[in-house]
Amino acid sequence: MDLKTVTFEEGVISVLDQRKLPLEEKRVIIRSVRDAYDAIASMAVRGAPLIGIVAAFGASLSLCETREEWENAFYEGTRLLARSRPTAINLHWALKRAEKAFEKARSSGREAAYRAVIEEAEAIRREDALLCRKIGENLQPFIRDGGRYLTHCNAGALATAAYGTALAGFYVAREENKKIFVWVDETRPWLQGLRLTAWELTRGMIPHKVIADSAAAFLISRGEVDAVFTGADRIAANGDTANKIGTYALSLACRAHGIPFIVAAPRSTLDPSCPGGEEIPIEERGGEEITRIAGMGEMAEEAYNPAFDVTPYANITAIVTEEGVWRP
Amino acid sequence: MDLKTVTFEEGVISVLDQRKLPLEEKRVIIRSVRDAYDAIASMAVRGAPLIGIVAAFGASLSLCETREEWENAFYEGTRLLARSRPTAINLHWALKRAEKAFEKARSSGREAAYRAVIEEAEAIRREDALLCRKIGENLQPFIRDGGRYLTHCNAGALATAAYGTALAGFYVAREENKKIFVWVDETRPWLQGLRLTAWELTRGMIPHKVIADSAAAFLISRGEVDAVFTGADRIAANGDTANKIGTYALSLACRAHGIPFIVAAPRSTLDPSCPGGEEIPIEERGGEEITRIAGMGEMAEEAYNPAFDVTPYANITAIVTEEGVWRP
Repeated sequence: MDLKTVTFEEGVISVLDQRKLPLEEKRVIIRSVRDAYDAIASMAVRGAPLIGIVAAFGASLSLCETREEWENAFYEGTRLLARSRPTAINLHWALKRAEKAFEKARSSGREAAYRAVIEEAEAIRREDALLCRKIGENLQPFIRDGGRYLTHCNAGALATAAYGTALAGFYVAREENKKIFVWVDETRPWLQGLRLTAWELTRGMIPHKVIADSAAAFLISRGEVDAVFTGADRIAANGDTANKIGTYALSLACRAHGIPFIVAAPRSTLDPSCPGGEEIPIEERGGEEITRIAGMGEMAEEAYNPAFDVTPYANITAIVTEEGVWRP
Repeated sequence: MDLKTVTFEEGVISVLDQRKLPLEEKRVIIRSVRDAYDAIASMAVRGAPLIGIVAAFGASLSLCETREEWENAFYEGTRLLARSRPTAINLHWALKRAEKAFEKARSSGREAAYRAVIEEAEAIRREDALLCRKIGENLQPFIRDGGRYLTHCNAGALATAAYGTALAGFYVAREENKKIFVWVDETRPWLQGLRLTAWELTRGMIPHKVIADSAAAFLISRGEVDAVFTGADRIAANGDTANKIGTYALSLACRAHGIPFIVAAPRSTLDPSCPGGEEIPIEERGGEEITRIAGMGEMAEEAYNPAFDVTPYANITAIVTEEGVWRP
């Protein structure tokens, strides 16, 4: 499942435009730090791991944009990119790696610093593909032949360099010839489930059906779901996990009905500087994502649109990373 | 809040087309039992109490359509209408009242039977407006000045002859000069909250904001909601309540955070012949309500679209009817 979510060639980043999927497969071309910022903030590119990769590549672009004051320009660029989305921690982690690579190389001049940042971004991308595969393997104890699972948002190949996090478990299960079925939350308001996860699972030949987010608890109550798998945008030191809005409600339903609630994410999603979920900043996006559906007129005057919520560690059965299974 | 959701004049029913709101205020003209069936099944008219009223008026139309075999035609008509939506019990209750009125009058001939059915439908409508007002009054102990409440779907004036059920509480609170704020679940897939409740509350001058359904649990976890109010489509003898899909998930969040979960409905919503929620038939609607948003292309291949779910009585703080407060 390499969907070429991001490619890089000499000063030009190309990303699959996730706002257009599944109706159109178009790419967005990124030639400047500002372009990279816009692509992330507008959600042309999304998914915590993928945002990190694009930000790292994006950081290199400031070094193409100017030949003077390029050291300042680089830090201005990373500061701008760090503000593109507030909740996902991978963004900050990837930018820090880019900065470290930059600092090691800058005494050798602009060109060397540029190469070093690109190499670091390439490394992050390579590592992401490998660790997603590993997450998929580590998820297998929770996935059985004949099982029916539910996922929210898109924690798939489209959210990463390849394979995905939560969905990696399903892809590896398929390789191991387990027959599984996946319920896909449509994931309002942005419809990542309806638009992206369903598209991805169709390509991955995994049987699935889309449901309204609010139907998940009902399906769980009727015994139609064996476990819920989601990704994560930031995991606090105590295990509290920020993920797409709606994740917390799912964890309550799992808890009420005694089924596993599994978080799958790279180790880099853990933010040790954040003691608990209360400290995780929650991005609020424009109300028009709710009130204007598919370009129709304004349906209501005011909406409140938090993009993430926090699931307390007590509701999480296991957090699965490339390093193994953690039970907070 | 009389929105003229349904009017009747000599063989012609006119209903506000709720599929077009809020962008257009159009009416659907119903001249036959088949028209009435279509209006209910297609959700031009919706809301458990209102469906009952339209069905009762609709039953009279078969007596205009034929002068021979009119007794058979009447029963064929009520049988057809009874199949228009499976979950709401008010439909069956209203049709039974229409049948009783018919049976009393039929020995006096077709014309008298027709008049009797219309009179009964008018009575149901009149009673509904009065009892909704009474439900609003009975809800006041749960609504305080300065309170912030959440509602799902549309249990408002648009779902009834006037005032609504759950929303009646808010309208009466406003008359009593309580300042309240209402979070409105958008209510996928049909968006009754975004399209209908927000429109109604704007007309009723009640401050509100629309949220994605999946954000409700998060708002509750952050202390932003003092109680949740919903309507009901059918209440089993033990208090288990069928209502719009997503209601059950809300009840879990209320329970997890110790806030009241209140069901508001006419006494006729109670189905004593139904011992528990497992016995309530749950309507499954077409998957395209989920996969085709606002006329855009098909976003996914398959969806599962249950229109209702069941909230067990243990999760319900109180069921408020025109007769008072019942704690199941």
